[in-house]
Amino acid sequence: MSSSAFLADFHAVAEIGATEHQGVDRQAATEEDRQTREWFRAFAVERGWEVRVDGIGNQMALIEFAPGAPHILLGSHLDSQPLGGRFDGAYGVIAGLHAAERIVRRVAAGDPPPPVNLAVVNWFNEEGGRFAPSIMGSSVFAGLMDETQMLAVRDLSGVSVEEALAAIGYLGTDARPDIAGYAEIHIEQGRILEREATAIGAVDFSWYTQKLDIEVLGEQSHTGATAMADRHDALVGAAKIIVKVHEVTDGFEPEALVSSVGQLTLEPNSPIVVARRVHLVADLRAAEKDIVLAARARLLEEIAEIADAAGLTINVRDFDVRDNQYYPENGIGLAESVSADLGFGVRRIRTMAGHDSVAMNRIAPTVMLFIPSVDGVSHCEREFSRDDDMAAGVDVLTEVAWRMLHGALHDAPEPAHSAITAPVPR
Amino acid sequence: MSSSAFLADFHAVAEIGATEHQGVDRQAATEEDRQTREWFRAFAVERGWEVRVDGIGNQMALIEFAPGAPHILLGSHLDSQPLGGRFDGAYGVIAGLHAAERIVRRVAAGDPPPPVNLAVVNWFNEEGGRFAPSIMGSSVFAGLMDETQMLAVRDLSGVSVEEALAAIGYLGTDARPDIAGYAEIHIEQGRILEREATAIGAVDFSWYTQKLDIEVLGEQSHTGATAMADRHDALVGAAKIIVKVHEVTDGFEPEALVSSVGQLTLEPNSPIVVARRVHLVADLRAAEKDIVLAARARLLEEIAEIADAAGLTINVRDFDVRDNQYYPENGIGLAESVSADLGFGVRRIRTMAGHDSVAMNRIAPTVMLFIPSVDGVSHCEREFSRDDDMAAGVDVLTEVAWRMLHGALHDAPEPAHSAITAPVPR
Repeated sequence: MSSSAFLADFHAVAEIGATEHQGVDRQAATEEDRQTREWFRAFAVERGWEVRVDGIGNQMALIEFAPGAPHILLGSHLDSQPLGGRFDGAYGVIAGLHAAERIVRRVAAGDPPPPVNLAVVNWFNEEGGRFAPSIMGSSVFAGLMDETQMLAVRDLSGVSVEEALAAIGYLGTDARPDIAGYAEIHIEQGRILEREATAIGAVDFSWYTQKLDIEVLGEQSHTGATAMADRHDALVGAAKIIVKVHEVTDGFEPEALVSSVGQLTLEPNSPIVVARRVHLVADLRAAEKDIVLAARARLLEEIAEIADAAGLTINVRDFDVRDNQYYPENGIGLAESVSADLGFGVRRIRTMAGHDSVAMNRIAPTVMLFIPSVDGVSHCEREFSRDDDMAAGVDVLTEVAWRMLHGALHDAPEPAHSAITAPVPR
Repeated sequence: MSSSAFLADFHAVAEIGATEHQGVDRQAATEEDRQTREWFRAFAVERGWEVRVDGIGNQMALIEFAPGAPHILLGSHLDSQPLGGRFDGAYGVIAGLHAAERIVRRVAAGDPPPPVNLAVVNWFNEEGGRFAPSIMGSSVFAGLMDETQMLAVRDLSGVSVEEALAAIGYLGTDARPDIAGYAEIHIEQGRILEREATAIGAVDFSWYTQKLDIEVLGEQSHTGATAMADRHDALVGAAKIIVKVHEVTDGFEPEALVSSVGQLTLEPNSPIVVARRVHLVADLRAAEKDIVLAARARLLEEIAEIADAAGLTINVRDFDVRDNQYYPENGIGLAESVSADLGFGVRRIRTMAGHDSVAMNRIAPTVMLFIPSVDGVSHCEREFSRDDDMAAGVDVLTEVAWRMLHGALHDAPEPAHSAITAPVPR
């Protein structure tokens, strides 16, 4: 199967939920999400592959080589952020399907059949824009989140995950296959590969990340009639926190820490009422845990000062804390040797963003690959990766999967734990 | 009719839409608003008064003394802010009904019947918390806003004024009565009367007010994967504006200017996405127009600097600009002489908040009265006025209405325009 077949499918899927400026809007369990799932199902059914949907809406295509043996799983997610990019997630699923197709043809052409089976997955709700937390489907699959709890999560309009999946016909009951390994390819969402003109990133570990759930409680009053000195304006307190969350990164090496507030709700949100309550979520990430903890400590001090100065009550809670996750060293080596064998430049790279592979790495030997992102932007319509970079990635993923199917990661994986003390390569 | 009858009714109405902490939540055209309207209707019907509802949901009770003559109108509004206070608006409507009841009894007891008629009004949507702009019903009545346009205004969930009024059975078609004068009593929502232990405020003019509609446009990106230097975070820009809107008051005499942001919406409002767009509304008010204009000019400069520094596009639009409105001098004099005659302390006072009387003052001789607010807080559950202050206000309103019915403002009103140059009394 050629790169042009892959690219034709990739650009066809980008039409589903397409936005005005070349992005997509396909939030989890929406009509647009359903349409991508129908496309995935048709791709598999046309090739005679078994399609399964599990209890959290993960959609899988199964290819049998060795009845009863476990599966090497390839995939990513077809859901997107609101007004998101067409590459984030979708690239990895479509690359996985085409890699599987090439492997099937290779076996049909006489190459040795693998002793295990192959599967491709479209994980439910990686993005977390509609239903928090993100990386939901793969985390339930890996046993890191509770399925019943996740089905009960509601979006801002009160619809639960269970209701939304049922509404699009994707609340499944199928058994989850046994997994012997996982490989995922994704756009970098940063500038490093582009800057260094390197085709492939072999991800060695994920950044330490955590969120802060911040509730600012003031006193509701009249924006017109209440003297300034008598106000306890929750929104002014929240605004000062947002600026501090942004500026805290200045206290560290450039790009060592990213920190921002993306979600905020305001009560009562009336033009002529001083806010009584603001709820916001701050997101802190760094390669090193100590940097996140230092930034968190500084923010907690500053938040306490803001509360004292303005007579506000501010409650702060840690949540969604994700430790550094180290991908197995032999998987990183596999990605490096495959890239070299195929003539593509490769480098080790950390991931600042979370991915489904971070969850899967907890239960199976996992390889995570990146391809370059133009300008490093993501989660927006302007997100872009070039056709030739995407095609190179499919070639590498195919060969990585082929070798995994033939036992390349058969040895017990050694986490590259020593990497934690090394400086971040730029 | 005694003060205790008034107080019993006042506290009964406060049970409609009552909140946990002694406030009320009766936003315009909600079920709770409907219930207060049913109470108003029952009060009027029990006394044989005609009840009318006009095309924008204003509810009126009419009492005929002189067939064919115009009406002196008393009233305010029964709608509230979300988690608002039980005094704001409701006090004036219930005081108006009881003043009317006392006047009817006085005529029945042999006092000279007036040559004009009497009416009491419950204006639609004074608060503007659900449907913007505020002071909607009285402004349509006074011809200052277009009824068709206002019926098409939608709340944040997409329901129009017309749909909401129809849903509660209060989209009326009744004719609006001719108005020869208007009187309204309201809580001060500030601390001046309480601080000076004065029972009655005779409002001489309203503050100059305006809003700024501010749209901050950044670029959506990933809170994790995007380098800080590559971000154009609309929420950080908005947060800096919110702080500037708060701090701009520091450049003027204490309490000369109030300024704040009460409404904000964020897109896409996802925990792991840097915001692409924030829309917010700032509210600026001062006794003097020049102060508001100076604050506005300073803010526009600061907003331009914020936009330049962060690579954001920020669009600012003036709206809801309300000039100082001067109440007629003979009406202020009437309030002063009635208060003195009844043995209550009185002082002239400006209103920082907008009121239905500001609209009515454009079409009819209008008297606006204030009673003290404890701690000056309003638009919140803690809003409070004492029973004896409320009772005194009903006495004064009754006598002001009685004298207006008998021609007290018959002379052409002289706006107290010279007051604009006088210092604000504290």
